[in-house]
Amino acid sequence: MSGDGITRLLADLPASLPEELVSVLLATPHVRIERIVSTGQASPAGFWYDQDENEWVIVIEGSAAVQFAGDSEPVVLQRGSYLNIPAHKRHRVAWTDPNQKTVWLAIHYKV
Amino acid sequence: MSGDGITRLLADLPASLPEELVSVLLATPHVRIERIVSTGQASPAGFWYDQDENEWVIVIEGSAAVQFAGDSEPVVLQRGSYLNIPAHKRHRVAWTDPNQKTVWLAIHYKV
Repeated sequence: MSGDGITRLLADLPASLPEELVSVLLATPHVRIERIVSTGQASPAGFWYDQDENEWVIVIEGSAAVQFAGDSEPVVLQRGSYLNIPAHKRHRVAWTDPNQKTVWLAIHYKV
Repeated sequence: MSGDGITRLLADLPASLPEELVSVLLATPHVRIERIVSTGQASPAGFWYDQDENEWVIVIEGSAAVQFAGDSEPVVLQRGSYLNIPAHKRHRVAWTDPNQKTVWLAIHYKV
């Protein structure tokens, strides 16, 4: 999973995942690219992410929903859906697909 | 294709493409995220990219090959393959799949 040379995002997916699996694919002072593998996990009830960095996220495989604080409905993401989450925009993962792995690519960046 | 709100990377793919289609999905002073759609294009013979920025690239759909200057063989990328291309590392696109659209996600970043 190193940044140089060729690597497969959809390889090395573990068979079972008690928690989400986060792998850092690239890290520089201004940008961090992560692969996140979810298998049905959601954020704990009442938990909200409140991040210092901006995050641009795309679902590569599977499906998921992100709830923003104050919104009535979560945003449903399917394969190829992407979303920009500005820093300190409170959000949580409402659900991820319980029947297959959801693979996210997350790009955390400073302005 | 704006950065805010939900958008589909694999939607709005045009039917025919005389040239590669580049759409900027996000642009900040330090990072630029692009979707690139190729339909069989390759870099012109003898042309080499020599970029001021680093580029992290992943193939979301389709397949392609990137040739680095000095290497004997190109690096073949399939769905989910990613590659980090440091600034000024000379490279060209050797080929993209002639039979289907190849969708790349490219993250250009400064160190």
